[in-house]
Amino acid sequence: MTKIRANNPELKSWLNVDKNSDFPIQNIPFGVFKGKNGNTRCATRIGDNVIDLYALAKLDYFKETGIEIEVFNNNVLNDFMALGKPIWRKTRDRISEIFEENNPELRENNKHKAEIIFKFSEVEMVMPVHVGDYTDFYSSEGHATNVGTMFRDPANALFPNWKHLPVGYHGRSSSIVVSGTNIHRPKGQTRPNDADEPVFGPSRLFDFELEMAFVTGKETKLGESITTANAEDYIFGMVIFNDLSARDIQKWEYVPLGPFLSKNFGSVISPWIVTLDALQPFRVKGETQNPEVLPYLKFEGDKNIDINLEVYLQPEGGQEYRLCQSNYKYMYWNMNQQLAHQTVNGCNINVGDMYASGTISGPTPDSYGSMLELSWGGKKPITLPDGTERKFVNDNDTLIMKAYAEKDGVRVGFGESRTKVLPAI
Amino acid sequence: MTKIRANNPELKSWLNVDKNSDFPIQNIPFGVFKGKNGNTRCATRIGDNVIDLYALAKLDYFKETGIEIEVFNNNVLNDFMALGKPIWRKTRDRISEIFEENNPELRENNKHKAEIIFKFSEVEMVMPVHVGDYTDFYSSEGHATNVGTMFRDPANALFPNWKHLPVGYHGRSSSIVVSGTNIHRPKGQTRPNDADEPVFGPSRLFDFELEMAFVTGKETKLGESITTANAEDYIFGMVIFNDLSARDIQKWEYVPLGPFLSKNFGSVISPWIVTLDALQPFRVKGETQNPEVLPYLKFEGDKNIDINLEVYLQPEGGQEYRLCQSNYKYMYWNMNQQLAHQTVNGCNINVGDMYASGTISGPTPDSYGSMLELSWGGKKPITLPDGTERKFVNDNDTLIMKAYAEKDGVRVGFGESRTKVLPAI
Repeated sequence: MTKIRANNPELKSWLNVDKNSDFPIQNIPFGVFKGKNGNTRCATRIGDNVIDLYALAKLDYFKETGIEIEVFNNNVLNDFMALGKPIWRKTRDRISEIFEENNPELRENNKHKAEIIFKFSEVEMVMPVHVGDYTDFYSSEGHATNVGTMFRDPANALFPNWKHLPVGYHGRSSSIVVSGTNIHRPKGQTRPNDADEPVFGPSRLFDFELEMAFVTGKETKLGESITTANAEDYIFGMVIFNDLSARDIQKWEYVPLGPFLSKNFGSVISPWIVTLDALQPFRVKGETQNPEVLPYLKFEGDKNIDINLEVYLQPEGGQEYRLCQSNYKYMYWNMNQQLAHQTVNGCNINVGDMYASGTISGPTPDSYGSMLELSWGGKKPITLPDGTERKFVNDNDTLIMKAYAEKDGVRVGFGESRTKVLPAI
Repeated sequence: MTKIRANNPELKSWLNVDKNSDFPIQNIPFGVFKGKNGNTRCATRIGDNVIDLYALAKLDYFKETGIEIEVFNNNVLNDFMALGKPIWRKTRDRISEIFEENNPELRENNKHKAEIIFKFSEVEMVMPVHVGDYTDFYSSEGHATNVGTMFRDPANALFPNWKHLPVGYHGRSSSIVVSGTNIHRPKGQTRPNDADEPVFGPSRLFDFELEMAFVTGKETKLGESITTANAEDYIFGMVIFNDLSARDIQKWEYVPLGPFLSKNFGSVISPWIVTLDALQPFRVKGETQNPEVLPYLKFEGDKNIDINLEVYLQPEGGQEYRLCQSNYKYMYWNMNQQLAHQTVNGCNINVGDMYASGTISGPTPDSYGSMLELSWGGKKPITLPDGTERKFVNDNDTLIMKAYAEKDGVRVGFGESRTKVLPAI
């Protein structure tokens, strides 16, 4: 495995970084912000400082990387990502160098600093990528088992295909939005249990799904396949992905072609794409796959990642209450396998595609990644600190997802995915 | 209903149009071609003449329409479509006027004609739109009934939801390609009937699906819904859509989240988008929907369209053999209902989205729109003129789909969707 200079736990920045910040100098994620003048620019973040990469490039700080300055003068990261992994790595390394404690080149230039560095609280983060296609996998055994147990047969909770391939389906790209975007409760058809005919109205079973997603930064041509061995050349990085779901709409519509309107009214991602490089120190071995997988799904090395995941619910005017704590390491199928599977038939991928993990549920009830599982289909309501109960999510509840990896005193995090559930229109 | 000047059946063009051409002056479809110099330009077609709309605009023929010339200097129609329905209509009307028999303005200008008009055989047609999201509906009762009869229960062939909502699912945008693109047989996991474990290899049950698709030319914001009454303001036009399918991969993978790799290795569309305006004379009443649909799916007027559909198979070195003849009028759910359903939950749509009908099968066995149905799951092989049999599609077979509407001596057609099935890589 390549040693990545920017990951060195000893590095410190001359910018202030709080002890519990998700964004030490070892992170260097990529995002897009809108400044006070309304321009959108590619950016990175250290501590609570947003760093305008276009300004940095224009002031010649990327001179030696050979990167075309204009890729950063953009409302999405797609053009930058399309430059390929050697450039992603070179850019991240150079940023690390510029902001390293002992480097005076920008540190001592107040004029440049004023043009380059902004307070996070003073900018607006926007969707970091234009998403071409979006796939949602279903790769956590805990989640698939819980759902199968609830709705089918506890003794045969997993379908026969589940351990042979990473089950997935195509989702809607248009409605993937950035953290801070509030989402109206969807209306739709549902059929109550005691009814013959469907009824129309706001969903009564509004849920979240705790997921992570990866973003591809390299395309393939139709007919080409990606192997588990070269998958990481295609993966730019990851975000938190809240796959909002209307369980009652889903139940009525999904046979036989899968979820549709129950899922495509809004999915909320965290604004910073944390690179796969930055996550390298947190690699862990996944669960042994049994039965043995087909050759195109075999892989070598540690392909899971130890990322702590949390979901909080905040009622209107109330406090944030942690609903669950899970971990990305619980994935049965890893990203390399997902991407190899997605393309084994020749399906082509583009820069900016998004691939979500599916709900990530761990082994214990407090690690379940959806209200459906936490309240066990509504049978075990959750009591909040204000005394109110939740089986699913109420109007005006705010959902917050957080994710971070931590090792050797370094915490590399994602910030948050935040959305408030507004009443149906 | 607005009277559309360009649809007048009396109109004739000074350009030659064969009696059986799909492209009389009443059609005026939109597409994108690549010329000899490698530039891509928006275009229309009359007879076998491809008309460069950018050249037409630059030479001032669109002066009075107020359209920004550069929208036609493009490799997709998205920018033009985004101008909205009044401009689509104005452009089509103006083109009709320029090429009308008695109009000398371009007819008598040989220098301009050489810059504007190209032979269809000398240009290459490319994908006419950048597809944002793609939905595949399942809206033909004949097809859904055939599939349900074969795989489930003839007495309950349709699922309970089928007559209450237009069932649909999200498909892959990246692999939608233009006619003339050949597609390799996909490889993937299948589980033979007598096996416990899946096997990996080229699909053995390669199929086509005869579909039509509509393209949206106007966006909505997240949270907004489209009604059946205003749906046509959003629909730019239609194409033929060959939804290639690997039936054996589908069978193993599709539970519980729907088709995935069995469908996303290639879908082949016809290159010309025929506008909804051009199809207006061919409107017919659809089947009465029973049970009555929910209010948001109710509609007024004739929303089905009488479009003849044909599928031909041409073995390597052999002749084109017509496998089936169907009609778009057999749709149970119309486009207005599909778009109202797609957005009833607030799902946002974009310019360039594609919405396919699902396989269109008529009432008689020769009108079935897939090999699965034509050969009844392989039980009734089809004998071709060369004496060979087909249960599904073989390597090196070419699939050709054609579509045209005809009335009052005017034929408005789509040209064709053509693809050759290449052996697995």
